Amino acid sequence: MLLDPTIINYQIEIEYDGTDFSGWQIQTPKRTIQGELQKALAVIYKQEIAVIGSGRTDSGVHAYAHAACFHAPNIIPFENIIKALNAHLPADIVVKTCKERPHDFHPRFDAKYKIYRYRFLTGTQRVAIDRRFIYHFKGKITPLKIFDACKTLEGTHDFKAFSCLRGDETGQENTTRTIYEIRVENPRENLYDLYFKGNGFLYKMVRMLTGSILHYASHESNPRDLTHLLTQGERSSAGPAAPSCGLTLMEVGY
Amino acid sequence: MLLDPTIINYQIEIEYDGTDFSGWQIQTPKRTIQGELQKALAVIYKQEIAVIGSGRTDSGVHAYAHAACFHAPNIIPFENIIKALNAHLPADIVVKTCKERPHDFHPRFDAKYKIYRYRFLTGTQRVAIDRRFIYHFKGKITPLKIFDACKTLEGTHDFKAFSCLRGDETGQENTTRTIYEIRVENPRENLYDLYFKGNGFLYKMVRMLTGSILHYASHESNPRDLTHLLTQGERSSAGPAAPSCGLTLMEVGY
Repeated sequence: MLLDPTIINYQIEIEYDGTDFSGWQIQTPKRTIQGELQKALAVIYKQEIAVIGSGRTDSGVHAYAHAACFHAPNIIPFENIIKALNAHLPADIVVKTCKERPHDFHPRFDAKYKIYRYRFLTGTQRVAIDRRFIYHFKGKITPLKIFDACKTLEGTHDFKAFSCLRGDETGQENTTRTIYEIRVENPRENLYDLYFKGNGFLYKMVRMLTGSILHYASHESNPRDLTHLLTQGERSSAGPAAPSCGLTLMEVGY
Repeated sequence: MLLDPTIINYQIEIEYDGTDFSGWQIQTPKRTIQGELQKALAVIYKQEIAVIGSGRTDSGVHAYAHAACFHAPNIIPFENIIKALNAHLPADIVVKTCKERPHDFHPRFDAKYKIYRYRFLTGTQRVAIDRRFIYHFKGKITPLKIFDACKTLEGTHDFKAFSCLRGDETGQENTTRTIYEIRVENPRENLYDLYFKGNGFLYKMVRMLTGSILHYASHESNPRDLTHLLTQGERSSAGPAAPSCGLTLMEVGY
C-alpha cells in the first residue's frame, strides 16, 4: 500500500470535564467526547474523520490530557487546527496541542504509560466549588494505611480482581499489568490525590483499586485483603469501584 | 426590649458555585443562595428564619466563604446545624462553619474588610475543567501593566465611575471606599488572580475595576485613563464589567 503523502496522522491532547458526558466512546445519540470531536472534525474537513483514542474513559471521568489521533488531509496548519477545533467544540472539551506522528503511530498501542489521578475528600464536610472533581468519602480513614495499601498494589500483578468485563470483552484477555508507582499527595486537610502511573489499566481498574484502598484504610477489623485479591482474586471480586467523578486521566506518555 | 436568651445569633460561612444561581438575594421563583438557605432553615426549625448576608453577590459570582447570620432558637448544637443545613442544601452550596455572635452583631455593618478574587486567563487557549471559575480574556496583555493599574487603584478613592446603580439605590449613596491592596498572583502561564482587599465594594465594583485593568493592560494606545476615572468619572463611565464567572468572594473579615 502506498501512503498518501498529503494525509497526516495528527495527535491531539484533549482536556475535558467528563461530568456531562457518557464517556469517551461514541454511542449515538449520547453525548461523548469522541462523538463531539468527530462532529467538529466533520465540519472543519467537510468529511467524516475517525478519531482514535489512547483509551476509553468511562461516563463521568475527566481528563487533563487525553491523547488521540486522526488522519486528515494536510490542508490546515497545526495551530489553526487547534483554533478550529476549539471553535467547534463545546465549552467542556478543549484541544490543547496538535502535532504530527508517523502514519503507523497508534495512540493506544504506542502508549508507554498513563497517569491517572483519583481525588477524594474524607470527613463529614463536603465541598461545593470542586464537587464535580472530588469523591466525598464519608468514612474515617487512617492515613498511614493509604500509603500501606498503595505500596502493596504497586508492581506487576494480575489485576483481574480489580476489573470488570467490558461489553466487547470475552473474559480471556490478559489481565496482568504493571503499576510503576502510586504516589499519594495530601494537598490540604482531608483531601487526597492518588496518582497511578502504569503501563496500562483494565476497565474500571483505577476506580476499583481506589475503592479497595479506601476500604482497607477505613476498616479497623477485616479490611479487604489486597494481597489475597492480587494473587487469588476472581474478576470483580475486589468489590465496588469508587465513583467516576474523582477520576482524571492526567497524562499519556509515549 | 428584653432579649430572648433562648434565641442565638448564628454566623455561618458559606461556599458556593454561583454558576447556576441568580445571585445571593432572594427573588422568588429564581434560584438564589439566600433563598436556598432560608428553605433549608425552614425545614430544620419548622418556622421561617431570615438570613442576613454580609453582602449580595451577583448572578454567577462564587464564594469560598460568604458570611451570613440568622437568629434561631437554641435547640440544635452548632456542629449539628452544619450537618443539618448541608443535608438540606443542594450540592452547589455548602455551610463550612457556624458560631455564635452577640445579638446586635450584623454581618454587613460589622465587616472590617472583604477579599474578592478575580481570576482570568489570557491567550488564545481556553480551558475546559476550570471554565466555570475563569474568565477567558482573549486580548493580548502586557503583564507589567496589570501591576501598574493595580497600584493606581489602591487607596481611598471615590469609586463612582466603577459602579452601577442597584435597583434599590437612589444615586445619592456615598461611593468612597478604601482598597487596602490589590495583590496579583500568576499561578501558571497566562493565568492571573487579582485579590482585592477593601473595606467595602460598590455594586459591580470589582468586575468594573477588573474590566478597566484588562483594558489598560491590553491597549498600547489610549488605554483607559484610570486616574482620570478615579477623580472625574461619572457613575458607570469605566465601561463594561468583566464577566461574573471569574469572581469569587474569598473572605469577610470581622
